[in-house]
Amino acid sequence: MTDNHILVIFGASGDLTYRKLVPAVYDLYEQGKLPEGFALLGSSRTEYSDEAFREKMRAGIEEFARRPLENDALEEFLAKLYYQAIDTKGEKSYGKLKSRMDELDEKHATDGNAIFYLSTPPSLYSVIPKYLASHGLNKENGKWRRLIIEKPFGYNYETAHQLNHDLLAYFDEDQLYRIDHYLGKETVQNLLVTRFANGIYEPLWNRNYIHHVEITSSEDIGVGDRGGYYDSSGAMRDMIQNHLLQLVGLTAMEPPQIIEAHAIRNEILKVFQALRPIREDDIATHTIRGQYTSAEVKGELVKGYRDEHEVPDDSRTPTFVAMKFFIDNWRWGGVPFFIRTGKRLPTKVTEIVIHFKQTPHKLFVDECDMPTDMHNKLVIRIQPNEGTLIKMGMKVPGAGFKVEEVNMDFHYSDLNEAYLPTAYERLLLDAMQGDQTLFTRGDAVEAAWKFVDPILEAWEGEKSDQIPLHGYPAGTWGPDVADQMIGDGMTWRYPCRNLVEDGSYCEL
Amino acid sequence: MTDNHILVIFGASGDLTYRKLVPAVYDLYEQGKLPEGFALLGSSRTEYSDEAFREKMRAGIEEFARRPLENDALEEFLAKLYYQAIDTKGEKSYGKLKSRMDELDEKHATDGNAIFYLSTPPSLYSVIPKYLASHGLNKENGKWRRLIIEKPFGYNYETAHQLNHDLLAYFDEDQLYRIDHYLGKETVQNLLVTRFANGIYEPLWNRNYIHHVEITSSEDIGVGDRGGYYDSSGAMRDMIQNHLLQLVGLTAMEPPQIIEAHAIRNEILKVFQALRPIREDDIATHTIRGQYTSAEVKGELVKGYRDEHEVPDDSRTPTFVAMKFFIDNWRWGGVPFFIRTGKRLPTKVTEIVIHFKQTPHKLFVDECDMPTDMHNKLVIRIQPNEGTLIKMGMKVPGAGFKVEEVNMDFHYSDLNEAYLPTAYERLLLDAMQGDQTLFTRGDAVEAAWKFVDPILEAWEGEKSDQIPLHGYPAGTWGPDVADQMIGDGMTWRYPCRNLVEDGSYCEL
Repeated sequence: MTDNHILVIFGASGDLTYRKLVPAVYDLYEQGKLPEGFALLGSSRTEYSDEAFREKMRAGIEEFARRPLENDALEEFLAKLYYQAIDTKGEKSYGKLKSRMDELDEKHATDGNAIFYLSTPPSLYSVIPKYLASHGLNKENGKWRRLIIEKPFGYNYETAHQLNHDLLAYFDEDQLYRIDHYLGKETVQNLLVTRFANGIYEPLWNRNYIHHVEITSSEDIGVGDRGGYYDSSGAMRDMIQNHLLQLVGLTAMEPPQIIEAHAIRNEILKVFQALRPIREDDIATHTIRGQYTSAEVKGELVKGYRDEHEVPDDSRTPTFVAMKFFIDNWRWGGVPFFIRTGKRLPTKVTEIVIHFKQTPHKLFVDECDMPTDMHNKLVIRIQPNEGTLIKMGMKVPGAGFKVEEVNMDFHYSDLNEAYLPTAYERLLLDAMQGDQTLFTRGDAVEAAWKFVDPILEAWEGEKSDQIPLHGYPAGTWGPDVADQMIGDGMTWRYPCRNLVEDGSYCEL
Repeated sequence: MTDNHILVIFGASGDLTYRKLVPAVYDLYEQGKLPEGFALLGSSRTEYSDEAFREKMRAGIEEFARRPLENDALEEFLAKLYYQAIDTKGEKSYGKLKSRMDELDEKHATDGNAIFYLSTPPSLYSVIPKYLASHGLNKENGKWRRLIIEKPFGYNYETAHQLNHDLLAYFDEDQLYRIDHYLGKETVQNLLVTRFANGIYEPLWNRNYIHHVEITSSEDIGVGDRGGYYDSSGAMRDMIQNHLLQLVGLTAMEPPQIIEAHAIRNEILKVFQALRPIREDDIATHTIRGQYTSAEVKGELVKGYRDEHEVPDDSRTPTFVAMKFFIDNWRWGGVPFFIRTGKRLPTKVTEIVIHFKQTPHKLFVDECDMPTDMHNKLVIRIQPNEGTLIKMGMKVPGAGFKVEEVNMDFHYSDLNEAYLPTAYERLLLDAMQGDQTLFTRGDAVEAAWKFVDPILEAWEGEKSDQIPLHGYPAGTWGPDVADQMIGDGMTWRYPCRNLVEDGSYCEL
């Protein structure tokens, strides 16, 4: 059950609040998932009246909410929204915030419980908690106070470690909710169910039966108007260190003892601790970085990355990263993991592919001539077209025993419960209910940074020139060399080899 | 490749020839699978001219062939058909047959190769080979001579053993093709491919991961006008001893060394030899026999078995059999196999269901309340709606981790090669090509009889009254007690619990 509380959003004038957070809170309200005593207080430097804030949020909800816009529900919900402008960097300003919170606590019976959502530039992640604390807003005393921190969490190991240090000066780890919206996706959570509610997978889920694991998260769009921010970040920080490594964690983890935040996060941490560091000598072969170049995509000329707004002409920021690495433990010893992400790839897709080993003995005619890629694969599609697919060999009808690869599949859209909550809906509700399972823990964030730091240092350090930065035409699956990384005559899976005109997806 | 040859069908005036054999040979011809030098010689006691036989076969083809009736192809094919009446029990008569064969050998350049197809009453299975031999028609000498024997092969162990003995007096085992048309079904053969061309099943295919195996072959029709024959046979002889035990063999066998008749048949024999005999004391609990009783099915009153034409009023012939047994070897020790067959059940379906064990640790909320039937199942559907299905647990969208059972499936009808050859097409072509893989070997037939003989003796012997014969209303899944046999709160799988009005099937 969800306790009464107030949700305070810092950065409430921003895009995330408008497009994602408030629409998600509305969706929860419309489904009756908010408590009776609830208020939402937006805050940022910009001045708004409550009324102006509500009107802006109304527009955001109307455009981005996924639940029906019942007139009554929408009006009732908007009446719970308030706004308080503050100087986020000015300690005194928080006094105003506190008295506003007290006033709303009384008015809406929020029982003194509060969630502070930091949807601000990262530079404020250490500042706001400090000033909240100096006004006692971190103290629980029978109430609860929780802090949600948006990504990015640090810029490298050192800054992440410092940020954890700053946060833990005022809040306990069990008050901290570091958001990774990938973990809020239904199909990511379904990974745990697929692995641990089915007797048939776990016996195969190890080095004896798995040849390699492949995880892809691709986008078809470029950096758009975020070029300035993106250029100081790049694909490794933007996608790999957080989202993709979390997927690695869930894919590779041991069964947790119970489904509970500590138990699950302990297991994810163990995976990160077992990541074999990529040695300096291996960086050029075990990591591939690329940058998209101008090309015609679906009949339109698309800009190269260096031509994007606010991106320097000589930028060496990767918009594509592919990596090969190992997890040094008993389950995964010797099994390569391949992960890749990129912008301006042919399609938007996130999927995990478990490549099982080929049969130890080829029995059937023509099996020896079969491509090395012909082996069982389990595809867990995170988005879009959520579901799972098994590639398996079946007999081709007719004389003899010719084998063909076919699909067995399941699509979430086949379920009666067609409504998949968005990641923010799910994660906000979890935070309201005090469930940290799907939020990253400080030690795991640091462990993930420890793994990627040496690569970033090599890429960005003095010897950067010795490590290639490959161009790839927009609309392709990244640099060709990424395929060589897999070896054994295998390639990455291409869920959609060619551009699909109507934006639909070739498979799963 | 298929050598030139002549196909001689004994029992050519019968229904099987008209409905199945000749249409299947036409289908092969239409697909260009017959050799250039080919003739078909029908034979039985009835007198027909070649022309009259051709006209009758034309009607059979027009009604039952599955390939297009190209006018040219049909006429060309009919021109290869001949007829020779003989007194099958009169040795001399075979002289006429031989000279007719010689004549056609010259006319159609069949190179002296011949297949003799025994589509006659079983009483002739020993007679015809003997007289063929006395005219030298069993001798190969650079040519080949093959004998296809229809079911039933024996009435019990003793008669099957005697029949083998009689056949082997004149033909070698590698000239003998004992037909079991179940083995000719695409999806039965696909069992081998599913098991041995996929790396993910074989590691799970044993006592460590499988809870039990269930095989069902049901019919919705009654005995029709075959009551007289059926009453002397019953479900055990008609279905279990041959078809269902063959499915058990393919499901339970070790991987053969190669896909070749001897290798596969050796492995099937090993399974039959490992069947734990059902002790006399266990027969009443490990076997359930039933007989359908009159009931209203789809709004029509259906006769009970004892009211069927030519069935005695006090018949104790089972029209339903369910059995539980074990295979005593390292792979299957302790895993119960459940097989059942029956007439007048709710639907016509043949399927193999592998029930995997539940997970060793229930992680998810509500999993403990889940029905014991909630575990992974692999359903291999032989007919209809051929394909495979995995029942697996998936996360129900929304907060928490609720698990629901969903289907991942593959249907043969999704393949481009939509044409599934019929069993007779496949088996005739195999015999023409000398491939015995899908024909039962003499030793396996005898081993299967050895397993069922004690049960038949108990049912039909002096103490028959002590073993219940359960009535079950037509249109139901047989006697209720059959479910108790499975135990652990589980039941048989009911692919279609209720009668489906339009004859479609509820689920793969």
